[in-house]
Amino acid sequence: MGDDKVDDIYKYIDSYQDQYIGWLQELCKQPSVAAQHRGIKNTTTLVENYIRQVGGQSKQFDTSGNPVVFGQFDGIKDKIISFYNHYDVQPEDPVDKWTYPPFGAEIHDDRIYARGVADNKGNLIARLAAVDAFIKCRGQLPMNVKFIVEGEEEIGSIHLEEFSEENTEAIRSDGCLWEFGYKNADGRSQVSLGVKGEIYIELICRGAKMDVHSAEAAVIMNPAWRLVWALSTLKDSEEHVTIEHFYDQVKPLTNWDSEMIEQLIYNEQEKLEQLGLNQFLLNLTGNQLKKRLVFQPTCTICGFESGYTGKGSKTVLPSIAKVKLDFRLVPDQDPDEIMNLLREHLDKHGFSDIDMINLGSEKPARTDFANPLVESVITSDEKISGLQPTLMPMSAGTGPMYTLCQQFGIPAVSIGVGNFKSNNHAPDENILVKDFVNGIKIVATIIDDFSNRV
Amino acid sequence: MGDDKVDDIYKYIDSYQDQYIGWLQELCKQPSVAAQHRGIKNTTTLVENYIRQVGGQSKQFDTSGNPVVFGQFDGIKDKIISFYNHYDVQPEDPVDKWTYPPFGAEIHDDRIYARGVADNKGNLIARLAAVDAFIKCRGQLPMNVKFIVEGEEEIGSIHLEEFSEENTEAIRSDGCLWEFGYKNADGRSQVSLGVKGEIYIELICRGAKMDVHSAEAAVIMNPAWRLVWALSTLKDSEEHVTIEHFYDQVKPLTNWDSEMIEQLIYNEQEKLEQLGLNQFLLNLTGNQLKKRLVFQPTCTICGFESGYTGKGSKTVLPSIAKVKLDFRLVPDQDPDEIMNLLREHLDKHGFSDIDMINLGSEKPARTDFANPLVESVITSDEKISGLQPTLMPMSAGTGPMYTLCQQFGIPAVSIGVGNFKSNNHAPDENILVKDFVNGIKIVATIIDDFSNRV
Repeated sequence: MGDDKVDDIYKYIDSYQDQYIGWLQELCKQPSVAAQHRGIKNTTTLVENYIRQVGGQSKQFDTSGNPVVFGQFDGIKDKIISFYNHYDVQPEDPVDKWTYPPFGAEIHDDRIYARGVADNKGNLIARLAAVDAFIKCRGQLPMNVKFIVEGEEEIGSIHLEEFSEENTEAIRSDGCLWEFGYKNADGRSQVSLGVKGEIYIELICRGAKMDVHSAEAAVIMNPAWRLVWALSTLKDSEEHVTIEHFYDQVKPLTNWDSEMIEQLIYNEQEKLEQLGLNQFLLNLTGNQLKKRLVFQPTCTICGFESGYTGKGSKTVLPSIAKVKLDFRLVPDQDPDEIMNLLREHLDKHGFSDIDMINLGSEKPARTDFANPLVESVITSDEKISGLQPTLMPMSAGTGPMYTLCQQFGIPAVSIGVGNFKSNNHAPDENILVKDFVNGIKIVATIIDDFSNRV
Repeated sequence: MGDDKVDDIYKYIDSYQDQYIGWLQELCKQPSVAAQHRGIKNTTTLVENYIRQVGGQSKQFDTSGNPVVFGQFDGIKDKIISFYNHYDVQPEDPVDKWTYPPFGAEIHDDRIYARGVADNKGNLIARLAAVDAFIKCRGQLPMNVKFIVEGEEEIGSIHLEEFSEENTEAIRSDGCLWEFGYKNADGRSQVSLGVKGEIYIELICRGAKMDVHSAEAAVIMNPAWRLVWALSTLKDSEEHVTIEHFYDQVKPLTNWDSEMIEQLIYNEQEKLEQLGLNQFLLNLTGNQLKKRLVFQPTCTICGFESGYTGKGSKTVLPSIAKVKLDFRLVPDQDPDEIMNLLREHLDKHGFSDIDMINLGSEKPARTDFANPLVESVITSDEKISGLQPTLMPMSAGTGPMYTLCQQFGIPAVSIGVGNFKSNNHAPDENILVKDFVNGIKIVATIIDDFSNRV
């Protein structure tokens, strides 16, 4: 399907790749950190301008948080493919660990370095560029295309439900290309058919109303100790979450799940070298390791802060202790239910004084392997990259796939321009320039291919 | 002894109190944070200038760390009283919790606010002022006076042993006035006859060489979790330190100790109100509470840092976790021995990967109640304040009393110009102006009284 029909578009992409790289650099130079409310307005204006420049209609949907930028392009057929992306990025700290400036978008050794270039501005621009090339070459698209570009993915898409509930018509599509995607160490793309759910929580324990001299510690409550003790009841050193009923709703693996785990490429040696580690958690390897990565829920300390953390010593008894906790959930764990279980657990263990702040949650979601969009993505990727992609039944990562797709019966498949060394959420985030250019071609191919399937 | 003989000196102090307050403000405006190596040189110059201005000989003793400022004043009798003080202060953070600038030395409602004003620049200047008033009124002191002013007390006096070992003649005295002292809520001074020992340690756990996406937490070691688990093995929620043999060398209380605990004033209600708490640790009250404060060793988390601690959420798996731990020790616990027990404990519990950094230690020390210096301090304080001081067998705080005094048989007694609301080591550190002026008079009285006793 559509085999040599899009050669003109590939040529156009090759000729205009510098322009598209320029768009990406421009977008990456604009900070857009949702956690810190930095640069949101400038970024939405930039994204709207690109949509209009390419020939689409653009609109911002307000939410109680950052707006959703929506783009619509009419095509020949009535069918609709939608692209879910986000314009927000993670905070860039620790800044001193970056080799190149996080908002410099500099190119070194065929890699573009920037906070958000892999997650997820590279994919957003690649998809815009594919639509641009199609329209420039053909005058019109073979089917309708929609862009849904939210601004709070990195803080748990906390207001996206408002948007999705009020704009089901805007969301409606026959298939959704999800925001992310990465190449494995062997050069094969990873195509994901689902995402884990998540709860991001801050636990806060308060002691005296001010820091006091640690000489008084013999008789005054220390919130840092209480938080340590509370945390130590949540997960044991065998990595088993010890909250009662935490695992009750976890679905057992199907035969297809196990088969996909077998076929999944995970280059252990390369990963360990990249991280500077000697072994994985619990010394796992092979299928056990991959199974845990894909299908196990997690409970992660993302941050812990209390008292004096500067140079040298300060003999202080802290007045407050805070921990940021991230739970990744798998079908059919429900965020609200897990949140209640956590509260009950803390109360039962004598920690009812510890406050819980919900910083965002997502339900897990999975797309059926038999959906035509899956086949369309696989064949399009293989055509451009020359290699068969690997299938990931569910990404270890999270996104609002339930909110935007699963609850409306829209299939969602992930593919993108990142790679296994892209350092998402970490210093020196980067993508390869050639992956970006190939990514544009893959999206163009999917638009052509999927228009013939649905 | 010396009853009305020093009235001329009291009058002089009253007349020149503004000048002495000015010295204190000048010294407090000069930051001198040992933990951050801030302002050390300027501060030693200032202290040397005061000593010379008052008429003494001054000298700096170099150490591998900050120098010790030494001052000597010859008097009529051969006997020697020494003053141990320190010119360094704690870091001023959290700065945003201060009502007045930490290095402003502003006076509001008869209180001087500054980092270090109570701990311990107020006492240093009060002692210099007492010597100044004596010399201005009489032309000479009744006995020899020595000042030993170190610059690393707040970081555990880590190089003071170098000084004391090489300069036993400089240290030699018949009694030492220790650096600190506070008024209780009932207006009575607290006179302390000893200090707890201390170990200040940083524990560091390392994971991957960079922060990674928390989606990968299912298979990658999290140093924050490991540190939480390690800490939870050190102390249980009943506040019992669970390091094997930790309590082995703790001496039982003598009858005199128990008697002093009975007589010790500790205004529980006022303390709780000041701290904004409803109860003390383990819900203790009365003698049990005071006994714990004075005679129990502690294990305190002074600071904990790992991962993302900014606003909102960042889904990151930290690469490193650090905790600052402060142990207060009582006779006859030995810092080196406790350090070894901690290392053995961590190794035994599977945490041999956790690094231990020694940031300073002190041995505990106590002075015999029967020493003449004790009686001299008690009667001098009562004469000026009109109230009988309370005796503290051992302060909950720490200092190098073993290093400077106990190992050489020099008795050491604590009295000073702070009060129970001085907020040492915390925001809004302050002293009352009238306590400062009375403090000068008390020191002048001690010099006169002790010269007649030894």
